[in-house]
Amino acid sequence: MDKFLEAAMQEAQKGLDEGGIPIGSVLVIDGKIVGRGHNQRVQKGSAVLHAEMDCLENAGRLSAVDYQRATLYSTLSPCDMCSGAILLYGIPKVVIGENQTFCGPEAYVRSRGVDVSVLNEPKCRELMEAFIQKHPQLWNEDIGV
Amino acid sequence: MDKFLEAAMQEAQKGLDEGGIPIGSVLVIDGKIVGRGHNQRVQKGSAVLHAEMDCLENAGRLSAVDYQRATLYSTLSPCDMCSGAILLYGIPKVVIGENQTFCGPEAYVRSRGVDVSVLNEPKCRELMEAFIQKHPQLWNEDIGV
Repeated sequence: MDKFLEAAMQEAQKGLDEGGIPIGSVLVIDGKIVGRGHNQRVQKGSAVLHAEMDCLENAGRLSAVDYQRATLYSTLSPCDMCSGAILLYGIPKVVIGENQTFCGPEAYVRSRGVDVSVLNEPKCRELMEAFIQKHPQLWNEDIGV
Repeated sequence: MDKFLEAAMQEAQKGLDEGGIPIGSVLVIDGKIVGRGHNQRVQKGSAVLHAEMDCLENAGRLSAVDYQRATLYSTLSPCDMCSGAILLYGIPKVVIGENQTFCGPEAYVRSRGVDVSVLNEPKCRELMEAFIQKHPQLWNEDIGV
């Protein structure tokens, strides 16, 4: 597996171990991980800390020139909110573990000039499939359905 | 001024008094304010807690049926990230104080079925204009430019 996606998977696993929703994310600038995060709905009772948001929050306040050479990795296709954060900060590249269990507005994000890659990593998909089967209500809450 | 926009303005003023970026937001369900928030970039070193996000976070974990009858008020036009949060949770109505100092993707949000009203409230615009003139760099950081 891509080493940065592997790091995002470790975050997802950490979330699962904490009793949370297993989605992880890392932000990479110049080949280095500058932020890591995972979904915090259960752990912090958070409505906004999806994995990508937690990752951006943990990366701290960055300037536009930093974001403009960053790549955001996520184990799952970013939702509308997380996609919006990517667009706000002009992050030019997004690498997604899988988009089979959930698919965000990838076409719209691409139309705004972002390079979106989907790696179709079975391990990411299997982790989410197992979680959704076990906790459908929690999962629905997380994606607003 | 609309009483809920007035409450959002009080949040903006609170942010300014704390040394932060003066943008405020409230979430209203069935005529009651269920969450209040203001931009937390300075106060919490936050990259994700724009006013609307802070408001949604403070409202706590809600179910889809709650969001679906909510109205989000913001003193300023919601950026890509905050607009994405509105879309994620299916919030059907957004009321904006002003969109002259900054304008988010209002047309896109409308195209996704959200009722977006802009009240063009001079007090909201004047507060932002004065802030941007005083702190242009901080403001640019907040909107990723």
